[in-house]
Order: sequence, then structure tokens, then C-alpha cells
Amino acid sequence: MPERTARRRVLRLALPAEDGATARTDQRADLLAVEEPLGIRVDGTALTMTMRTPGDDVELAAGFLAGEAVVRSAEDIAEIKICDGVACGHGDHGDGELGNIADVRLAPGIAVTPGARRNFMTTSACGVCGKTSIEDICVLPQAPLAFDETRFDPAVLAALPGRLREAQRVFSRTGGLHAAGLFSAAGELMAVREDVGRHNAVDKIVGWALLNDKLPLAGCVLLVSGRASFELVQKAVLAGIPLLAAVSAPSSLAADLAADAGLTLVGFLRGPSMNVYTGAHRLSV
Amino acid sequence: MPERTARRRVLRLALPAEDGATARTDQRADLLAVEEPLGIRVDGTALTMTMRTPGDDVELAAGFLAGEAVVRSAEDIAEIKICDGVACGHGDHGDGELGNIADVRLAPGIAVTPGARRNFMTTSACGVCGKTSIEDICVLPQAPLAFDETRFDPAVLAALPGRLREAQRVFSRTGGLHAAGLFSAAGELMAVREDVGRHNAVDKIVGWALLNDKLPLAGCVLLVSGRASFELVQKAVLAGIPLLAAVSAPSSLAADLAADAGLTLVGFLRGPSMNVYTGAHRLSV
Repeated sequence: MPERTARRRVLRLALPAEDGATARTDQRADLLAVEEPLGIRVDGTALTMTMRTPGDDVELAAGFLAGEAVVRSAEDIAEIKICDGVACGHGDHGDGELGNIADVRLAPGIAVTPGARRNFMTTSACGVCGKTSIEDICVLPQAPLAFDETRFDPAVLAALPGRLREAQRVFSRTGGLHAAGLFSAAGELMAVREDVGRHNAVDKIVGWALLNDKLPLAGCVLLVSGRASFELVQKAVLAGIPLLAAVSAPSSLAADLAADAGLTLVGFLRGPSMNVYTGAHRLSV
Repeated sequence: MPERTARRRVLRLALPAEDGATARTDQRADLLAVEEPLGIRVDGTALTMTMRTPGDDVELAAGFLAGEAVVRSAEDIAEIKICDGVACGHGDHGDGELGNIADVRLAPGIAVTPGARRNFMTTSACGVCGKTSIEDICVLPQAPLAFDETRFDPAVLAALPGRLREAQRVFSRTGGLHAAGLFSAAGELMAVREDVGRHNAVDKIVGWALLNDKLPLAGCVLLVSGRASFELVQKAVLAGIPLLAAVSAPSSLAADLAADAGLTLVGFLRGPSMNVYTGAHRLSV
């Protein structure tokens, strides 16, 4: 059984309460949901890659193919093996970790049609499959944020979720939209965007900055209304944002990439408390 | 300004309360977040498609390219036009609606490298871009669920979110995982799966059913811990599931596809109340 949670160090911050309680911080280990890439290979060809929590990977591959109308019953699948690149005979993967490729053989007469292919994320063969190290799957330069020396006040951060909600013109009417907000270190709202897709909301923020010649977004805070995934961390780092805050939890890979890139990653930013997963030196405690 | 919300009819159900209040139902109009496909075309080639909420589409295209390290500043982009297929000169789109293609021209010397391409969902040229009708973008047979005559008791549905949470071994430890649960019409838990990606959690459920020769899942309920998107409705319908319930809101396109496919779509399934967007005939009220 693969691990579905991973232990990471976290700094818990609690702001001074109105009843006079003082600010508290403590270090502890926190369990994060594991996020790793799974490559799905069909009859020898890399078909798609998904970031997933390891476990039930045979089911994930089978269900993905059913959801794309490639297969309709167990009879349509000859075999699914979970392996790394080496074990499947696509050698030269170096230190690829076991278990991040689902190698599917379809039954005779079953195939992925070109029409179905349009829904798939393509992977250059062996580009991602079988690799779990961050260097292999992301497009970032090394430690690009190390020189951003902005300091952030936790009390300012604590006020941002409320400001984001106020600024969401649509959220209160539908309950169905993700939001991303860009703030200055002083807590001033610079931009807010919404979307049914949380990655899209962040793309809209970064696109706004790019088109207005504001990249890199040094000294800024990006706040997202949901969880922090690997992809959101990658987008923040590429935009030069030193602090990513999420209302919910980060994944393990999000925390790992944030540490590598020198990003300050704050999770569970709710009311007067927050968890700091990486880059705590940027918070004035 | 494109519409970001769309009005859909909804049946609100409130179960009898313990204090003796009787069950209530009322019909009203509900505002849903609009979800539509945006095709991103770069220098004449369809690069990717994303389901998004219309609005800020130029920013979305620019930010997407920045997040894939294709462009780094406004100078790298010569032009972004939002258009339909016809207006961009890729004729013969028929009734494609204006505004679902972002047509990007990069500056001289800037290009999408093969290495960057691995992260993109590919679209067969003109396969999705510029089309908003459900028939054009989904892979479903017509009205496949019309003959599933299962009836569901709202009181049974109301108990499912609690059962799903109980069954989530990981959720309570990380706070970071999406869950999907499959239940019989009597409310019996058949399978639960979790993942950092909500689509993955549903794929794992459907894959479990497929590998155990349980497809189609006639008479079953699929419950997801978050929102209901177009893709989740498509996966449920393809698996033959007659009722999809979500703890949060559906998108407009999710409701439209559910109506077309004959799926019963329940949203905001929380405590003793729920919203029924489509297929209310399956609920015994």
C-alpha cells in the first residue's frame, strides 16, 4: 500500500486574541496528502499524465479510460501493470521510483481513437512517467525567489481571506467559483479573478500582471480560495511571487516544490491562525 | 462582458425537521457559475483547451502561457484575439459561438518548445475551439440514463455526506483530499476513494466498478465532496450512474449536460436540505 500522507514540518501561528491572549507559535509535524505524477501508458504509448494521490492506481487508469469512452468493460482491458519505466522495459530512467506508471494493454480490437485523444494531456514519452523528483517534472529555474527579501506581517495575512471574499462579485451569488487574489505586502488588493477552475483563476491573475508589465510580482502575496497543489506553486514561482497562501491544505509535492524554490507557503489561512510550511523567515513573528 | 452566471431552475428540498416542521419543497431560479470551453491557439495551432468561466480570457491565455514558461513578459506576445473559429479564419464552424477561442500570436523568436508541450491538453484542431454546444464537446451517447427508473429517498440522500466523511480514512488527517463515494439507492456504501484531484477520485470509483464487472452502475448514487463540473457529470453518465450528488454547487454546463443525459443532479447536499437541478422525477418527495 503506497503512502497517502507524508509528514512535513509546519510552523503554527496564532495571532493575539481580543481577550488578551498573546500570540503563539509552535513547530510540529503535519500530515499532508501525497501528490505524485501517474503516467498512463496504453499499448506502449504514453497517453496522459495526472497528478494524483498514490493508491488504487489500477482503478484510476481503468476509470480514466472508461471516462474517455475508450473501454466499456473489464473485457476491454487485457492487463494493467503498475511499474516504473525500467520494470516495463522502457529503460534508462535512472532513479525513477517504482509505481508511477500504469502500463495498460487493451484487449484485441480495442484502441484509443484519434477523436478520443483530444481530451488527453500528452506527455513526451518518458518525460514524466516513472519520475517523482521535482527536478524532473517542473519547468522552474533553481531557487528563483531566494533573493526576494520582503517581510510579511501575519496580522496582515490574516485579514486577506475576508478581503478576497468581499471582492468576489460572483462567489456570493453562485457558491461555485474558485477565487485567486493578488495583494501587496501591506495587504492592498491588486487584482481578483474567479473561475470554475482554480488553476484558471491563477492564470488570469498572472496574465493580468504580464499584460500590464508587472512581472515578476516581487513582494506580493497570492491567495487562493482552496488548496495549494504542485501546479499552483509552480505558477506562483514562475510569476516571481514570494508568498502563496491557501485557505485549505497544501499537498506534499506543493510543500516540497515551495521549499526548493524558496517560496513561502502558508496553508489553512483562516481567521487568526495559519500554518507556515516553508519560508517562515519571511514572516515577522 | 461575458456572462459569468447563468440562471437555471432548481427544486429546493428541505426534509422534515426534528422540531416537527414538515418537509418543504419550492421551485426557484438559481444562479450557477458559467462553465464553457476556451481553446488556446498559438500561431495558428490549437495548443490546449480548458473548461473555464468566461471573462478575462485574454489574461487567461497570457497567464497560461506564462505558467508554462512559454512567455515571460508582454513583449513576448504580439497579439491575443478572442474570437470564434470563423472570425479567426478557420471557417466552417457552423454555429460556433463568439468568444471561445483565444488566438495568440507570439513575438518573433518566441515559440512553444516540444519540451513545454508535454503539459498541454491537446485538441484536434477545431475539435472543441469555438464550439459551446454540449454535443460538440462530449463523448456521450444520447439520453443513456432515460431508462433507469430507480427512485431515491431524499432522507437517504441527506445521510450520505456524513457516511462519506466517516469512510474517509485520510481526509480527517490531512484536510487536503477530495472524496468520491458510491452508494446504493438504499444508502449503503459500496466504495469510497480519495485523491488530491477530484476527477481522479471519481476515476478510481469507476475503475473499481469496471474491474469488478459492475458497469453500468444502474440504481447507484455517486457523491462528490466538492463541486459538480461538466467532466464529473460526463464520467457519471458514462458509468451509467443515474444520480450525481455534490456537496457544493454545479456549473451551468454540468446542469445542461445532466439535463440532456437524463441524469439526476443534486447540489448543495448539506444537512437536511438539497438543491435538485435536473431529473427531480427520481426523488420520492
